[in-house]
Amino acid sequence: MTGTAMPMIETYPKPINLDRSRLAAAIDALTACAEACTACADACLSEDQVAGLTKCVRTNLDCADVCAATARVLSRHTGYDANVSRSLLEACVTVCKACGDECGRHIDMHEHCRICARSCRACGEACRDLLEAMG
Amino acid sequence: MTGTAMPMIETYPKPINLDRSRLAAAIDALTACAEACTACADACLSEDQVAGLTKCVRTNLDCADVCAATARVLSRHTGYDANVSRSLLEACVTVCKACGDECGRHIDMHEHCRICARSCRACGEACRDLLEAMG
Amino acid sequence: MTGTAMPMIETYPKPINLDRSRLAAAIDALTACAEACTACADACLSEDQVAGLTKCVRTNLDCADVCAATARVLSRHTGYDANVSRSLLEACVTVCKACGDECGRHIDMHEHCRICARSCRACGEACRDLLEAMG
Amino acid sequence: MTGTAMPMIETYPKPINLDRSRLAAAIDALTACAEACTACADACLSEDQVAGLTKCVRTNLDCADVCAATARVLSRHTGYDANVSRSLLEACVTVCKACGDECGRHIDMHEHCRICARSCRACGEACRDLLEAMG
Repeated sequence: MTGTAMPMIETYPKPINLDRSRLAAAIDALTACAEACTACADACLSEDQVAGLTKCVRTNLDCADVCAATARVLSRHTGYDANVSRSLLEACVTVCKACGDECGRHIDMHEHCRICARSCRACGEACRDLLEAMG
Repeated sequence: MTGTAMPMIETYPKPINLDRSRLAAAIDALTACAEACTACADACLSEDQVAGLTKCVRTNLDCADVCAATARVLSRHTGYDANVSRSLLEACVTVCKACGDECGRHIDMHEHCRICARSCRACGEACRDLLEAMG
Repeated sequence: MTGTAMPMIETYPKPINLDRSRLAAAIDALTACAEACTACADACLSEDQVAGLTKCVRTNLDCADVCAATARVLSRHTGYDANVSRSLLEACVTVCKACGDECGRHIDMHEHCRICARSCRACGEACRDLLEAMG
Repeated sequence: MTGTAMPMIETYPKPINLDRSRLAAAIDALTACAEACTACADACLSEDQVAGLTKCVRTNLDCADVCAATARVLSRHTGYDANVSRSLLEACVTVCKACGDECGRHIDMHEHCRICARSCRACGEACRDLLEAMG
């Protein structure tokens, strides 16, 4: 997959003190996860069994908000502060785990939850990869 | 390009009263534009000539905010309200034009502005295509 | 009510070509409306009759996203573009009307919808006031 | 100060396992901080010395994004997950410290940085208070 993050990273006019491949992979995964979670929350709302999916909707909304904010922060390199990136990536790992687990409970019944759970897991992994690369 | 929007659209459990291809194209273009604008704002901040790029930074931030909000709204189909989608798509067309024009002034000097301008134009076009399809 | 917008508006180092009182009132109303809509969406999710409130949840989420983006855009004055502000304010008027009407259907049963509907109406009014002042 | 969070918290139809006063104070502080940071980033852009304020702009943008996302997450009580709230509050404490410190360097020259630094410190404190109450 060629994402949208790397082409912009390559135009940044100053050095970037991070592994660019993992950084781009994390931004792309965060963006895709935020999009999947937003759509999954809405698909859950339209299921006949919505009453059994309210925790899923809520976790999806949280995950979308946190991943979107983190994608933005990671897209900035000016005045880089490793502590900020790290604390946000850790929050993302936590919320992606929560959302992946919650969606994971409904993968047999709801295809949107199956795709979303996969997206959350891929995102959590990309965030952990970047955290490791940050040392 | 295979974006992330269509797989989720296909799992929505109720009918969608919109051209799905144009809808997916708009969501993907909005997401890519928001990402490019966020990165372009930051790249401008790190240019030595930042004092001449402050309007560009501002317009990038606006465009990122409006495109991100619109991508979310278009990703929802429950209780669809055409007036809301239409008014937001029109706002996106306006802000993508403003940002594409502003970034377009710096494409000879800044590669990030060149990529971002192209992303804004593609996004504005995708929004207009969807507006047309909505009738 | 003393909001948080005016103190920051007063520190902006260049002229602002807008009625400052109406601008501050709009930003404060947009922020309050975004917050009320986010909370109302979640309160609806926890109602026993959530199946009858799914359109309300969706409209709340849209209204929160559009109002939050508009509050940000209006908080920026650098390189001001009246067309961008105007198109967004018009989108806000549309979505606040939609959300105020939807929440307005449930005010006898749900206090959160009553407060949220009031917040949407106040926000729509503040946006129209600012639009009028912009000419 | 009477904020906008408490009236909505009081209408939530199920129990909330958090100190409501501290929760409302945190949401209000996060919302106010996000607004101040958005405005401070723009005010910095319009200063003649913008070249010396680029790290301040960037940190402001990060702080606005993280505080806004956290305010949304804390405004939801359905299917509450303490780990998600905690990790986000910790990220907020980190970014509010970073932004308060960065704005704090310019308080003698820029009133917007003075107000914003105060807002960041108040927000960090409200987040720590809520974290303590969560145990």
